[in-house]
Amino acid sequence: MSLLFEVGAACAEGGRRGELTLPHGAVQTPVFMPVGTAATVKAVPQDVVESLGNRGAEIILANTYHLYLRPGHELIRSLGGVHRFMSWRRPMLTDSGGFQVFSLAKLRKITTDGVEFRSHLDGSKHFFSPEHSMEVQIALGADVMMAFDECVETPATWQRTKDSMALTHAWAARSKQYWEDHRHEVPWARERSETRDQRSEPTQFEREYDATRFSDKHQALFGIVQGGMYPDLRRESAQRLVEMDFPGYAIGGLAVGEPREVTREMIALCLEMLPKDKPRYVMGVGYPDEIEEYARMGVDMMDCVLPTRAGRHGLLFLRENPADRRSAVVRLNIKRKDLADDQGPIDAGCACSVCTRYSRAYLRHLFSSGEPLGATLNSIHNLAFYLETMERVRSDIAGTPG
Amino acid sequence: MSLLFEVGAACAEGGRRGELTLPHGAVQTPVFMPVGTAATVKAVPQDVVESLGNRGAEIILANTYHLYLRPGHELIRSLGGVHRFMSWRRPMLTDSGGFQVFSLAKLRKITTDGVEFRSHLDGSKHFFSPEHSMEVQIALGADVMMAFDECVETPATWQRTKDSMALTHAWAARSKQYWEDHRHEVPWARERSETRDQRSEPTQFEREYDATRFSDKHQALFGIVQGGMYPDLRRESAQRLVEMDFPGYAIGGLAVGEPREVTREMIALCLEMLPKDKPRYVMGVGYPDEIEEYARMGVDMMDCVLPTRAGRHGLLFLRENPADRRSAVVRLNIKRKDLADDQGPIDAGCACSVCTRYSRAYLRHLFSSGEPLGATLNSIHNLAFYLETMERVRSDIAGTPG
Repeated sequence: MSLLFEVGAACAEGGRRGELTLPHGAVQTPVFMPVGTAATVKAVPQDVVESLGNRGAEIILANTYHLYLRPGHELIRSLGGVHRFMSWRRPMLTDSGGFQVFSLAKLRKITTDGVEFRSHLDGSKHFFSPEHSMEVQIALGADVMMAFDECVETPATWQRTKDSMALTHAWAARSKQYWEDHRHEVPWARERSETRDQRSEPTQFEREYDATRFSDKHQALFGIVQGGMYPDLRRESAQRLVEMDFPGYAIGGLAVGEPREVTREMIALCLEMLPKDKPRYVMGVGYPDEIEEYARMGVDMMDCVLPTRAGRHGLLFLRENPADRRSAVVRLNIKRKDLADDQGPIDAGCACSVCTRYSRAYLRHLFSSGEPLGATLNSIHNLAFYLETMERVRSDIAGTPG
Repeated sequence: MSLLFEVGAACAEGGRRGELTLPHGAVQTPVFMPVGTAATVKAVPQDVVESLGNRGAEIILANTYHLYLRPGHELIRSLGGVHRFMSWRRPMLTDSGGFQVFSLAKLRKITTDGVEFRSHLDGSKHFFSPEHSMEVQIALGADVMMAFDECVETPATWQRTKDSMALTHAWAARSKQYWEDHRHEVPWARERSETRDQRSEPTQFEREYDATRFSDKHQALFGIVQGGMYPDLRRESAQRLVEMDFPGYAIGGLAVGEPREVTREMIALCLEMLPKDKPRYVMGVGYPDEIEEYARMGVDMMDCVLPTRAGRHGLLFLRENPADRRSAVVRLNIKRKDLADDQGPIDAGCACSVCTRYSRAYLRHLFSSGEPLGATLNSIHNLAFYLETMERVRSDIAGTPG
């Protein structure tokens, strides 16, 4: 078993309330996944991530490219996978590394076989093929892994986008083949290595980890629809991937600078093509109003660095009218001088641990003084705001508490 | 009422088990006080500081010099004091600013009236007199404030030390006079200002804050014994301060580079001179074995930035034999390469939230990757280690759980 997806109530616009059951637990959908790039949701301890909002984050994302470079996937494999490495009990998802290779790494050389690139950390040379991305993702052992895709630059011509899409499809097939052949290698059920146990007693978390739970489980692989901003290519890409029959589908290559109407149009036409009984994931979006909109259209999963990145930069999300959780999303720059003596919380209608305890005056002080607690508290609020938004959307779709 | 101190059981070496009751609550002594320089225990959220060890930190320290410069004591006064500013319910202590003025600020000019200095932040010119330090500390409103003292450089001649000590005594008398005349001005009982209430609803923390609780309470002022490394001057200083009759006494000017035997000797002879029924506080010490040693000698209060500062630099404290909490204190550099795959906790005998959940391998990864969570988790462990040490000392002295 890798994945179960039960779709419940749906709303007129296409949004649906679902439950995604993965090896490490169940996830209520539509869901927003906080990003934990280097096996840490930046500046936020795991127990806080678990307790955000009413349910906590039920699934988080980690980045294959970053963990491959540091600390290395073989190290994480030897410790039983990224869950055990970072002491996270709940489901996780890893991207394929493709997006980061194309956006962060230097001196890329792309062939049909894969991509040669240099690390953004030390300039060392590396090569990712679909097979190697799968190997790394199996070593990391997230519940959901992603096919290796080419991310085309924006804007790109129709022909360039079509060629890139064809490569993505070929790589998707190779990714799937490798996953089918090797998914039993996932290190979840691995016993603690003898040598290491002799050196030191493992943590309580590790001692309580029940490896036998995972003996009959493996990772799920999602295919990624590409096709740029061309409706015909998007449709073709979705159709080709559906023919390959993945456990779930992602819509990639969006939110890369195109107008929001285009993003919406591309998502809508992909959703039409993708099977209704499988999870559909839009990668790397977005602002709180965007994730709400896409969830109502029928997107089941989304992720974005925005809540944590904005938080570290002192940018906070709140409702225009705190008492009305459906009112517009407003952004507050905590650096603002007039907040220096503001005794109110970030968002008076937010029930998060930051808004109940800390004032804007204090958060401004922390940020202005460069105190690390500022980034932590700002990130916690923004994440809670995103999760609250999705709870409300789930509740709206189902007509019951989300 | 400003302070009640009940001394219970004592041990042969002079250590005593006590309870210090301050306006914001009771503190079990001997106690270690985490330092929250800028109204934040660096990188650690308030709820975590409250839950360290078995009782949480019962008192924390904030630095007058830092808060005076940023965000400014008048701002903090207008918000009802540093407790309400940082949302901290328990007792606090502020230093006088003297030590920071002498060690951090630039271009000091000392007269009998006070010290002129330039801010380490922006070079702006400021002046601290005993009266001004008291004014600032009353605005901040910690439960315990400290007399303004001169901190002599080390080493210093007998004559230089004696002259400096005389200045400290004159300043102590002026500090006490100002405190007696103005202590009713502490802003604890201040109602939320009308203008601010109209702008935004206060946080839940602030709404639940019961200002009436503090109507009959004021801050306590501690005198500071100086005298450098000269036994005769130390005795003279202690005697002079005792004559002034403070609610508590600190021993200052130690742990500034002198050999540890000298520190111990100076503490011992000051303790002999200071009244047994009042709290005795050694400022700015020290390593875990030092705080244990001094507590057993009869010191009731200590503070140090070491647990948090060392944590941010990847230096962790643990017991040589994890199963024996009385075994030697060992330091672990989390950067060490051989820890990369170590599945054990920092200290297998430590019950803190970091040691129960996270491995050395993960903490090393966080530190090596510059992830902010590393500083947070390292600081939490070190603080918990210090608090555990003091719990054990209290238990030893009393012959019962501390």
